[in-house]
Amino acid sequence: MHLALHPVPASPASPAHEAPAAGRYDPIAAATDLAARLRATAVERDRAGGHAASERASIGAAGLLALSVPREFGGQGADWKTIADVVRIVARADGALAHLLGFHHLQVATVRLLGSARQQRRLLTDTAERRLFWGNAVNPLDKRLVATPTAGGYILAGAKGFASGATGSDRVCAWDPLASAALVAVLPTNHPGIAVQADWDAFGQRQTDSGTVTFANVHLAEDDVLQPAGRVPTPRATLRSQVAQLVMTNVYLGLAEGAFEAARGYLRTDARPWFASSLDVAGATDDPYVQHRFGQFRLLVRPAQALADAAAAELDDAFARGAHLTVRERGEVALAVAEAKVLAHKAAIEIGSQMFELTGARSTAARHGFDRFWRNARVQTLHDPVDYTLRDIGRHALDGTLPEPTAYS
Amino acid sequence: MHLALHPVPASPASPAHEAPAAGRYDPIAAATDLAARLRATAVERDRAGGHAASERASIGAAGLLALSVPREFGGQGADWKTIADVVRIVARADGALAHLLGFHHLQVATVRLLGSARQQRRLLTDTAERRLFWGNAVNPLDKRLVATPTAGGYILAGAKGFASGATGSDRVCAWDPLASAALVAVLPTNHPGIAVQADWDAFGQRQTDSGTVTFANVHLAEDDVLQPAGRVPTPRATLRSQVAQLVMTNVYLGLAEGAFEAARGYLRTDARPWFASSLDVAGATDDPYVQHRFGQFRLLVRPAQALADAAAAELDDAFARGAHLTVRERGEVALAVAEAKVLAHKAAIEIGSQMFELTGARSTAARHGFDRFWRNARVQTLHDPVDYTLRDIGRHALDGTLPEPTAYS
Amino acid sequence: MHLALHPVPASPASPAHEAPAAGRYDPIAAATDLAARLRATAVERDRAGGHAASERASIGAAGLLALSVPREFGGQGADWKTIADVVRIVARADGALAHLLGFHHLQVATVRLLGSARQQRRLLTDTAERRLFWGNAVNPLDKRLVATPTAGGYILAGAKGFASGATGSDRVCAWDPLASAALVAVLPTNHPGIAVQADWDAFGQRQTDSGTVTFANVHLAEDDVLQPAGRVPTPRATLRSQVAQLVMTNVYLGLAEGAFEAARGYLRTDARPWFASSLDVAGATDDPYVQHRFGQFRLLVRPAQALADAAAAELDDAFARGAHLTVRERGEVALAVAEAKVLAHKAAIEIGSQMFELTGARSTAARHGFDRFWRNARVQTLHDPVDYTLRDIGRHALDGTLPEPTAYS
Amino acid sequence: MHLALHPVPASPASPAHEAPAAGRYDPIAAATDLAARLRATAVERDRAGGHAASERASIGAAGLLALSVPREFGGQGADWKTIADVVRIVARADGALAHLLGFHHLQVATVRLLGSARQQRRLLTDTAERRLFWGNAVNPLDKRLVATPTAGGYILAGAKGFASGATGSDRVCAWDPLASAALVAVLPTNHPGIAVQADWDAFGQRQTDSGTVTFANVHLAEDDVLQPAGRVPTPRATLRSQVAQLVMTNVYLGLAEGAFEAARGYLRTDARPWFASSLDVAGATDDPYVQHRFGQFRLLVRPAQALADAAAAELDDAFARGAHLTVRERGEVALAVAEAKVLAHKAAIEIGSQMFELTGARSTAARHGFDRFWRNARVQTLHDPVDYTLRDIGRHALDGTLPEPTAYS
Repeated sequence: MHLALHPVPASPASPAHEAPAAGRYDPIAAATDLAARLRATAVERDRAGGHAASERASIGAAGLLALSVPREFGGQGADWKTIADVVRIVARADGALAHLLGFHHLQVATVRLLGSARQQRRLLTDTAERRLFWGNAVNPLDKRLVATPTAGGYILAGAKGFASGATGSDRVCAWDPLASAALVAVLPTNHPGIAVQADWDAFGQRQTDSGTVTFANVHLAEDDVLQPAGRVPTPRATLRSQVAQLVMTNVYLGLAEGAFEAARGYLRTDARPWFASSLDVAGATDDPYVQHRFGQFRLLVRPAQALADAAAAELDDAFARGAHLTVRERGEVALAVAEAKVLAHKAAIEIGSQMFELTGARSTAARHGFDRFWRNARVQTLHDPVDYTLRDIGRHALDGTLPEPTAYS
Repeated sequence: MHLALHPVPASPASPAHEAPAAGRYDPIAAATDLAARLRATAVERDRAGGHAASERASIGAAGLLALSVPREFGGQGADWKTIADVVRIVARADGALAHLLGFHHLQVATVRLLGSARQQRRLLTDTAERRLFWGNAVNPLDKRLVATPTAGGYILAGAKGFASGATGSDRVCAWDPLASAALVAVLPTNHPGIAVQADWDAFGQRQTDSGTVTFANVHLAEDDVLQPAGRVPTPRATLRSQVAQLVMTNVYLGLAEGAFEAARGYLRTDARPWFASSLDVAGATDDPYVQHRFGQFRLLVRPAQALADAAAAELDDAFARGAHLTVRERGEVALAVAEAKVLAHKAAIEIGSQMFELTGARSTAARHGFDRFWRNARVQTLHDPVDYTLRDIGRHALDGTLPEPTAYS
Repeated sequence: MHLALHPVPASPASPAHEAPAAGRYDPIAAATDLAARLRATAVERDRAGGHAASERASIGAAGLLALSVPREFGGQGADWKTIADVVRIVARADGALAHLLGFHHLQVATVRLLGSARQQRRLLTDTAERRLFWGNAVNPLDKRLVATPTAGGYILAGAKGFASGATGSDRVCAWDPLASAALVAVLPTNHPGIAVQADWDAFGQRQTDSGTVTFANVHLAEDDVLQPAGRVPTPRATLRSQVAQLVMTNVYLGLAEGAFEAARGYLRTDARPWFASSLDVAGATDDPYVQHRFGQFRLLVRPAQALADAAAAELDDAFARGAHLTVRERGEVALAVAEAKVLAHKAAIEIGSQMFELTGARSTAARHGFDRFWRNARVQTLHDPVDYTLRDIGRHALDGTLPEPTAYS
Repeated sequence: MHLALHPVPASPASPAHEAPAAGRYDPIAAATDLAARLRATAVERDRAGGHAASERASIGAAGLLALSVPREFGGQGADWKTIADVVRIVARADGALAHLLGFHHLQVATVRLLGSARQQRRLLTDTAERRLFWGNAVNPLDKRLVATPTAGGYILAGAKGFASGATGSDRVCAWDPLASAALVAVLPTNHPGIAVQADWDAFGQRQTDSGTVTFANVHLAEDDVLQPAGRVPTPRATLRSQVAQLVMTNVYLGLAEGAFEAARGYLRTDARPWFASSLDVAGATDDPYVQHRFGQFRLLVRPAQALADAAAAELDDAFARGAHLTVRERGEVALAVAEAKVLAHKAAIEIGSQMFELTGARSTAARHGFDRFWRNARVQTLHDPVDYTLRDIGRHALDGTLPEPTAYS
């Protein structure tokens, strides 16, 4: 059990329309199947970049967009542990699509955490029924988007850069962080006055459909405001950041697992032992240094898995606490996720970089595309600086200070 | 919850004679209390070394010797998870005593795994009733002890070095590894012809009561032979090594936790910030580098805890499988324990050595005794070489090869 | 002095025909100037890959092809220290071109080390006069090329893969490693029967003009055989491997220095401090973690520089010893180069990967091309496995065993 | 050459009265001989601690106290490179005595850097003639010593803790850091009113004769004031800190080399290969993991040696610049020493701790005393925090900021 990279037990979720009448929809099986298909084209799509239109459609067809929507709104009501597993499974094959999928669920969570009962019903029922794909226009570090109060709502003007998943999305969440205690709103991406410029051009995570979203004096109705300016967020509301961080963690972890599996597969079938090894080394997997290093890889991946699983369970507990969630409980979830995230970050970067010491020069041929694990992990793990996460973890271990609730912690 | 170094829920065990009539015996509370008393004298005893006679008596009085004895024989029937927690709690204060206690339970486990029903009843009932303390004369690398078949049993002649806990013990397990498929036996330590030379003089783990046990043509009755020469051990029988490795893991982990706590305590009360820090660093715990490094310490300890807990649970499952345990299942337990052990090893050595970078020059005063964490961990972690454990883990991750069942894996 | 990444004192070499009459040719200045020009197009050429025809011409025009040709043959007679510096300077801007240039000098060294006086005069005079660019068809691990003795020479048939610099070269060295004690020969690349297939397609070092060289029963005259089959190489002859390893070392080191400089430049002009830093962090370079990590980068680069410089000097000494070079002296050069190479390897990989933790998410934009440092280093450092180099270094440190002279050590 | 741990060429120094008439005094040979004698008793003295009276006498008899005294004052006028080598050689055997010796030379340097010509002649002639041993009462972090101006000098009252080498010394340097721009003075240790309390009790470096020096209203004549309160130190005067840091560096490095040699010796004669190694491992030094790890040890030691040697040479150059030394030149010396110190620190701690992974459990026997390398390094390397040294190095590498001249940088 503890060995498997696919340790995720099929978490029985809601019966879903995609599933055969006799059975139950199995999100893990659906994700596994999707990942196999994405893997087949991942190297080519990594090279080409561009909008992931047909892959988004596959995600929707696989039934994975309604996972986080409560059953009462027609979704599958999956727990965060299951959603985290799904993101991780997809990330083994394709880190960009895993991020797109994970951040879709982040926006759904935003509606669940910040929206009124009526908003939730309206927006989430719509999401489940029409398989809406949500994108992000939140970027808390980009202060260009300004919400000006007006009759019946606000006028949104300005822009948000690095908006993951905005290109090709159906709905976006938008955030004016300068408004007193911030303002969070949802809008249809095709709203007149909203435009998405697909200007993402990083060396990794090339199909995250990130871009810059511009708002040309867009009228925002009060009914589309999840968190009005001035409302102090509850501890529960600030769990949004932990959903985001858990998604990041599982994208990193899936990339680590993907690199691990790619190295294992290549070593078993393609790699050659070094000529200067002793004579009893029949294959690359018999090399004592290869074995030793692979043991170290295992000890990068396995603890990250254990802590990521535990963190997901803590997040589920926190959601279950509802309005009773305390500042302290919220902080402990943040720490659990932070710890898992640092381990997953390290696993992804180190295995993605070091795997080549084992697989050797021939494994760098572009057709294998093995460098995409490092490139994807390298880009994705810069979402927020690991040194400040380590500081938060250490500060708490020293004196019990909880991480300050921000968009990143 | 995830922060605590004392996360061990009180595992309700058997009602025990030490406990008040109205309550239940709580081994975790007993161990915590014992550890507090051992901590008070640990620095002094580390300096003096020598036989831990009164500390052994305290362990017995705390009711911790019968933990691994099944209830049907008058013991507490605690699971391995609980015993591992007890060992870890004691090791936070005193690594040597934790080793003594853990290896006592290893010998009890030896009786349970290798002994006949009659042997178990006789030896374990005696252990529970009379609070017997078991020592080890097994050292598989010392081939000097030879068992020669004779009428009604064997003649044991020779010696075993590095026999942990032999000095002052009531019973010892002895092993002739050269006998076909090995021979394992139990004897009273005060048996005529058996002598223990207290020749242990390492720079750490100074009170493990290790020594050299000599056997001067000692007659061994068949009834005291747990595993006769020539009997091929079952997978279940070879779990003995996993009990040993789990004990080592929890001693290492307790040492890591002890160093972590010592550093935290010192930093909060005694340490001073470095003068060259910026002006807003009021205390040592505010230093950005101290916080960052402490975060790294936390990420050494926490994964080791998670994997050690999981490994103990796997060992409990394997014991529950009884005679049905397969070679593969046994191998997977071995891997789970091995992974936890490598992480705990690293945590103990690194925190024990690096803690001083944070606590500073004054913390090296002999009266604090903070170097004992590194010295204890350094000696204890050499039980078997970590590089071969990493090889085993890596080899399995590469091609599924299970670790060969040996006394160390 | 010790801070500079450009510490190379202009090593006054021979007056060269390219230099103005009044001055002296300065290879360091020439390399620095060339590197500046290569840097301007490096990101674009990294993306496009393909044959580096015009860049090769620039190298020739800069006068860098005759550096290793002795003055008596019209070359500049530069020492290896100077050539190493030139390779390193070029690698800061473009690792692939640095490899091409370094391996050109490796072939020239092959003529100097293995060729007769007459061969040296003929081949090297030609090289200096006509600015010949040499490629490599040596790959000792590719056993497909077979030299069959025939009247007046040999027939060469078969192929050599991973032949660095073969595409577009004027001359190649070829090697039949199966011939008794090996056979090394030189041929014009445009010789009838020789074809180069530009099949290199790795994810880094994309313009090394590597390919597969095929020999369709090519007649090889005895006069073009540098080392006939059966001649046991002298210690001096086996210095060829050390020239190769020194070139690799300086390519790695130049890549490390290039990444270091790129990170520094970006941090000074483009990076932003993290919002969660304390208020007195005005710019990214004020961040305590950025400073600390950059200090660690410095301590990756600086020791590699010191050891690489010392190794080059040892190689120059060994060349100066000529036929008197002993096995032991040769072995000590090999160790000096090996040590420098491991440090340079580590510096290039770690800075190339970790630099982004400092420069942040925006620095991953493809237009910066900063990932090329890691990709180039990752591909280039797989030339031969670092774990076996570490083994050689450790074995010698333990018991004085010299590395076995091979094509890699 | 590059392999030797004793690479120090005999640096011909001044003809000295201790040397035979026909020869020249060789400080390297004298230090090597002394180290051999100290090594023979190092384990025992490490255990016993206490005042190193007879060892100090041996140092004096070996002629090593006058090394730093210029020839014009009867000393040997050795350069810092030679003194650094001597300290390093002694530290291989005994880190505490090496520190004592090094800090003696630090006080001599203090006289040379801060004293007037007349003070230098008086104090240093005395030092050479009478083999005075100098101690330290400078501790800049201990602000308890106060110098109050009075007629013809000052009154010194208060205390200095952690005064290395004060116990048993002939002269001490004292420092009131609160006096404007500080005040530095020299006094005979047996001056009435001065008392040394031997209260050093750390777990390592046990014979450094550190203690607390108390001053009971001691009158200090102006002639014994090297740096009067209020005189702004020249760049040259602040080289004192670099002498201190270079001494620390070479103590660390000698400890690293001592551990390296101890491990090598034990592995070649006492260690056994692990039973689970493959069959062709005849001895511990054949083990592939032992070789690999020893290669890594080598790559910890060797770069530290290279940088320490270079830093000593830079310090010699700076002394040679005399009053012309600029702030920038002084800063570059500080950086060169800082870089070497961090590497030496890491080498000493890591080899001192990791060596046991190779040498195994039996090597922890107290009679070997191998833990003293880690304990000595652990205590000594806390002189000032490495993280702030790394910050200084990184800050300079980023933007050219020179380390602020303090007592530690």
